[in-house]
Amino acid sequence: MKAVLIIADGMADRPIKELNWKTPLEAAHKPSLNKVAKTGICGIMDLISPGIPPGSDAATLALLGYDAVKVYSGRGALEAIGSGLEVLAGDVAFRCNFATVDEKLVVLDRRAGRIANEDATKLTKSLQKVKLEKSQVKFIFNSTIQHRAVLVLRGLKLSTAVSDSDPEKVGVKVSEIKPLDKSPEAKRTAQILNELTDKFHKVLEVHPVNKERIRRRLLEANFILCRGAGTVPNIKPLSEEYGIKGVCVAAAALVKGACKAAGMKLINVKGATGTPQTSFMAKAEATVQALGANDFVFLHVKATDAVSHDGDFEQKIRMIEKFDGMVGYILDNVDLGSAYLAVTTDHTTSCITRNHEGDPVPVAITGPQVRRDDVGEFDERTCSKGGLNRIRGMDLMPILMNLIGKTKKFGA
Amino acid sequence: MKAVLIIADGMADRPIKELNWKTPLEAAHKPSLNKVAKTGICGIMDLISPGIPPGSDAATLALLGYDAVKVYSGRGALEAIGSGLEVLAGDVAFRCNFATVDEKLVVLDRRAGRIANEDATKLTKSLQKVKLEKSQVKFIFNSTIQHRAVLVLRGLKLSTAVSDSDPEKVGVKVSEIKPLDKSPEAKRTAQILNELTDKFHKVLEVHPVNKERIRRRLLEANFILCRGAGTVPNIKPLSEEYGIKGVCVAAAALVKGACKAAGMKLINVKGATGTPQTSFMAKAEATVQALGANDFVFLHVKATDAVSHDGDFEQKIRMIEKFDGMVGYILDNVDLGSAYLAVTTDHTTSCITRNHEGDPVPVAITGPQVRRDDVGEFDERTCSKGGLNRIRGMDLMPILMNLIGKTKKFGA
Repeated sequence: MKAVLIIADGMADRPIKELNWKTPLEAAHKPSLNKVAKTGICGIMDLISPGIPPGSDAATLALLGYDAVKVYSGRGALEAIGSGLEVLAGDVAFRCNFATVDEKLVVLDRRAGRIANEDATKLTKSLQKVKLEKSQVKFIFNSTIQHRAVLVLRGLKLSTAVSDSDPEKVGVKVSEIKPLDKSPEAKRTAQILNELTDKFHKVLEVHPVNKERIRRRLLEANFILCRGAGTVPNIKPLSEEYGIKGVCVAAAALVKGACKAAGMKLINVKGATGTPQTSFMAKAEATVQALGANDFVFLHVKATDAVSHDGDFEQKIRMIEKFDGMVGYILDNVDLGSAYLAVTTDHTTSCITRNHEGDPVPVAITGPQVRRDDVGEFDERTCSKGGLNRIRGMDLMPILMNLIGKTKKFGA
Repeated sequence: MKAVLIIADGMADRPIKELNWKTPLEAAHKPSLNKVAKTGICGIMDLISPGIPPGSDAATLALLGYDAVKVYSGRGALEAIGSGLEVLAGDVAFRCNFATVDEKLVVLDRRAGRIANEDATKLTKSLQKVKLEKSQVKFIFNSTIQHRAVLVLRGLKLSTAVSDSDPEKVGVKVSEIKPLDKSPEAKRTAQILNELTDKFHKVLEVHPVNKERIRRRLLEANFILCRGAGTVPNIKPLSEEYGIKGVCVAAAALVKGACKAAGMKLINVKGATGTPQTSFMAKAEATVQALGANDFVFLHVKATDAVSHDGDFEQKIRMIEKFDGMVGYILDNVDLGSAYLAVTTDHTTSCITRNHEGDPVPVAITGPQVRRDDVGEFDERTCSKGGLNRIRGMDLMPILMNLIGKTKKFGA
């Protein structure tokens, strides 16, 4: 028995007036998602708890079965290990954004117009040459996908108790990084970060790539915003927890990092970019193939979230329909007599507020031994009538693992 | 975006034979409550956890979003601060009842025939003159509404680890107050309370107000029952938790106290009495007005609970219908394009058992961005089919705050 958990990032939404008060998921044509619902058991799920908007990091830990409220140790380290950097004990890592600010450091765009990978890579090379005054601290900076980047600080006496420079909205000034407790470590870490941020800004402002971007009428990537100071979470690998061999098919660094922290193997898929241009089908094929030699595949698509943060619900419908095609390929190519397939999302991202929201998400599980219910459509409202009722994010993995016979009895 | 949370105390009930096995809420004519359900998202809610009958104090803390199981520190202090008394760190406060006992101290009525405010006030003046033997401990005693009163003990070496004198039923003897642990503080506090109870009884027995009550064929208020030893709970104000300005429209001291402990402003409404004779409309008007300058209004009506404890389900239906009119006024006078309105109750009070019960309560939320479901009636059974499914009391506030954009993301 095997299991596939398929996540379309930020796929759930709230009703939208222009869609006749449907959500994008309700409005989309999604025969394969509906087939999972129709042949399976459905429900709604609070990734963390009702009303609490989940960050993608905490939500992914929950989807892997961990109690995120207990084990969460910041986004940065997950993002860094997911991008291929090594994060050691004692390192403090950050998720960064290439962003556009004006001369007063007011944020104009938190994603520098969703800068292309090539430009970000060139800028990164120059940033890597910056020198810190305190030579006993090293930094490692790498860009990942589009505007996304990671920063690792390595050295003695560092702390995660520092605030973000990313204000997480536009039209306001970049935040100064401040210590969040009174320890000398926090003070020192904040100082180093402020110094680095400032030096990065100076490099980026005069960089030829940005001059060229201005000529091409693109937003300059003239600032590096940091957030989510973190260390590697202290979690038990899935192999130990459930005795399974699990693999991850994802492009987003954060998701790859969480899966790696859970001891899963990462499968690199050509054409999987973590953007709306990603190759859905290549990921579907990789998933089917990976299932041969493994017990569990965690398949993640980022595209649905990216368009939600841009407020583009028409595009979101299109991404959901592409995602549906991917689910269809998997349904057609996996033996559902010996495999379970679960479909869900890591959070609601509202195209209206353009933020993660605390509304529950739909979830459906199909496979040979589920208690099939009478839900026939996969969406936020129909799934709320399903046989799973309302569960927590951290419940899904044990449910799946139990279906494939991999959970341990509690008690004797 | 603003939010109103409207509570009809003890409104939920169990099926009643004389109502053709409907609950009072199912039997009532309630067009406005049904409108909230029809235009909103519905569900059922366990204030504490399934099957556990919530005290009004713990339930109100849960409704304000707190984990009552963790923060609950007794009823007394909430009741006392709600009645306008100051409760300091180290003080131990009690909820008290004017009650009727016979010569053997058997409780005949726990509410002295729901004694009128004027009589209680006169009796209180005499009780305040009682002197304690241990002069280093002071007491403050005040009546609030009808039979309700509060007592605060102030001094060093006091403890909340004392039992109640209120047996919470009639036909049995008043309970002796006993220490609940082996500390000298608990022993001392119990001694002081027993002394005070005894002295109060001696004053009340011969009081002219009681002689007059006997002439008027009313029950004597000849005993003060104490319960719910408590200190002020250690909770984060709503302003810090959600960054909101919240106000409370309530008459019941306990509810006012919980809201005050949560850092909310109390609005005094003329004609709001906490009894079935309260002015529902004055409260509705105060709520609409308060919403202008605030983010959140907590509106509470006690009348529905009072009649339930008396087992009067016909009267309960009438109270629910009055409450419905109040909700109607708010629906008509609040802009539902920019406000969310939630309606619920703090617990089930059974007209048959005349007690708080552990059955879940119905809840409905309406407003611009809710995932409207197909529930069209606001009652215990129909709401159980709604899109919220089954939530906990402490979940409602985060859900509401998320809808108005006031929750913080967990994770990054």
